Amino acid sequence: MLVNGKQYQTIWLTGNRLSFVTIDQRKLPFAFKTIYLRTWQDVQRAISLMIVRGAPLIGVAGAAGIYLGLLSPDAKKDYRNKISDIGTALKSTRPTAVNLMHAVDRMVDLTQTTSSVDEAVTVVLNGVLEMIEEEKEYSRKIGEHGVALIKEISKRKHGKRVNILTHCNAGWLACIDYGTATAPIYEAFSQGIDIHVWVDETRPRNQGARLTAWELSHQGIPHTVITDNAGGHLMQHAMVDLVLVGSDRTTSTGDVANKIGTYLKALAAFDNNVPFYAALPSSTIDFKLTDGISEIPIEQRDMEEVSIIEGINRRGVVQEVRILPDTAQISNYGFDVTPARLITGLITERGITAATREGIKTLFPEGRLSLKK
Amino acid sequence: MLVNGKQYQTIWLTGNRLSFVTIDQRKLPFAFKTIYLRTWQDVQRAISLMIVRGAPLIGVAGAAGIYLGLLSPDAKKDYRNKISDIGTALKSTRPTAVNLMHAVDRMVDLTQTTSSVDEAVTVVLNGVLEMIEEEKEYSRKIGEHGVALIKEISKRKHGKRVNILTHCNAGWLACIDYGTATAPIYEAFSQGIDIHVWVDETRPRNQGARLTAWELSHQGIPHTVITDNAGGHLMQHAMVDLVLVGSDRTTSTGDVANKIGTYLKALAAFDNNVPFYAALPSSTIDFKLTDGISEIPIEQRDMEEVSIIEGINRRGVVQEVRILPDTAQISNYGFDVTPARLITGLITERGITAATREGIKTLFPEGRLSLKK
Repeated sequence: MLVNGKQYQTIWLTGNRLSFVTIDQRKLPFAFKTIYLRTWQDVQRAISLMIVRGAPLIGVAGAAGIYLGLLSPDAKKDYRNKISDIGTALKSTRPTAVNLMHAVDRMVDLTQTTSSVDEAVTVVLNGVLEMIEEEKEYSRKIGEHGVALIKEISKRKHGKRVNILTHCNAGWLACIDYGTATAPIYEAFSQGIDIHVWVDETRPRNQGARLTAWELSHQGIPHTVITDNAGGHLMQHAMVDLVLVGSDRTTSTGDVANKIGTYLKALAAFDNNVPFYAALPSSTIDFKLTDGISEIPIEQRDMEEVSIIEGINRRGVVQEVRILPDTAQISNYGFDVTPARLITGLITERGITAATREGIKTLFPEGRLSLKK
Repeated sequence: MLVNGKQYQTIWLTGNRLSFVTIDQRKLPFAFKTIYLRTWQDVQRAISLMIVRGAPLIGVAGAAGIYLGLLSPDAKKDYRNKISDIGTALKSTRPTAVNLMHAVDRMVDLTQTTSSVDEAVTVVLNGVLEMIEEEKEYSRKIGEHGVALIKEISKRKHGKRVNILTHCNAGWLACIDYGTATAPIYEAFSQGIDIHVWVDETRPRNQGARLTAWELSHQGIPHTVITDNAGGHLMQHAMVDLVLVGSDRTTSTGDVANKIGTYLKALAAFDNNVPFYAALPSSTIDFKLTDGISEIPIEQRDMEEVSIIEGINRRGVVQEVRILPDTAQISNYGFDVTPARLITGLITERGITAATREGIKTLFPEGRLSLKK
């Protein structure tokens, strides 16, 4: 997508094939900086510190980490054990998004049939590049399928502005390109449909206010930032036509784990008959799970994400302030689970389906996606 | 209540009876400062700038404003017209809380039968002092009635810790003393019941994180600050036994306007069978209204409440930072309405009742409270 008029994706291989480049998402929207990932430890750090975040992107980053691990000198002998250990370390960086587990396992699996580290390097690099293209294609397809919903609402409103609410950042920054929840939005905008996006601030890390608003402004899409508290009021007053969110992990029965607070918006949408869709590539589906609330591990993150906030001071310098006394007791759950019964549908790369076991099975009869080729 | 071990209430008359003193709530929790209200314009400013806030407190402050208006030199001739104008000005400072309208009208009404400005001064001062005592008594009674709910849960849990979630600040800082939602909490704590309070941060002004957490810490009550997004997740996992909130305006049918985001918590409580109570003195009841969502005016406040935040910098100095680019489009609704169907009950100074027309009528058969004597 566009940044200051120039096309970007969130992660790419350098010309010498020895490292990847990504965007340091912690610095947005105050600065647009790219950062090199040269070792698997760089990847581990980037995921842990949320330099990269978003389920599809951390999946790809994890895969890239396996590749970089294979390049390291100490992988020369016994590379299989080495990358198995690296895979375990990478998978433990974030517990909720399943893409990371899928992607790392997929890269490690690719090396099961290789006969040398050099061959493994080639095979895994192809695997990473294939996954990058695949995720882009998933997002593009989600946009293609999802835009039908927006078109339909626009038609019903006789072309009057369609108001879409989104939570957190399920944008291109969370993916490789296009995004998940934002993909139908970008597609609708490019088709000339009159749209406006309500952007939930998304405490504590404010990825809505910091990332989604930044994304939308660079594409020129009308949007308004609101506090996480406001969505219910807007829906009560018919100011929201559609809710679009992403997913960090989706059960085989259609429960969706997503950024904390998503469940509250789903409740409000349900209570006000506002359609609520989760947009997700199949890489977020965990076909083993049937009950999101009891089965999906919810990450607890640092108290300082809540108590310390970053902004621009009067001199235009980025600065942190502590918004709570340092004696404050704080709890910080990163995700919640929206039960399938509150979800109007899932927008996937293969089409839109009901958030039910049957719906998911119809689109993905093979269950866990088999590796391509 | 206690501040550093010393008893305070939120507003009091000075010894010379020429002004009131209040706490500058904008400065909490970083500094505890009191401020003089010497003229009715001081009161207008204090309400507008949210130096004082909370429905019961701004009611009393409005009443005090009428008194201070009567003391002003230009009230000497034609004091009735003068304070009628002042009343109109004061009532327009905040649109949602009805206490302000009730309190100002009540003071202006008191002067209908006075025959001189000096008599009006005496009568209105007595009216203000009476209202202060009344609000304290209302809160005390709310605590007395509400504690029964907490006791019952504690008993059902065999004395295990009772977890109460609250939104915004419906504490003593919002009232004169004790608070509304907090009154049962303070009473339960003083009776030795094991309790813990989940404090919603309450964006954008963070009155939960800044005020409620500060109040609770000064009384020594265990509590944890959470983001506004977190409550649903906690309720899904049985980590909340009771939700207690305040009310800025309550319809005759039991709808409750309260700080934006309250409705989302009510939905989550309803979805998880967690009892949800609004604690309110009858001064917040607007007996004329029957449909909160269509009839209660919802205040829209400044974008900078969302985009600028105050905290402590590394040098320990209070400082503002801008957390959104200054080009950001922002919307900032201050309140939302929770429909009565989601409310388990109302805790009032006369007891607990269903959030229904019949329930409210049973406790308040006289409808709008008649002026005392």
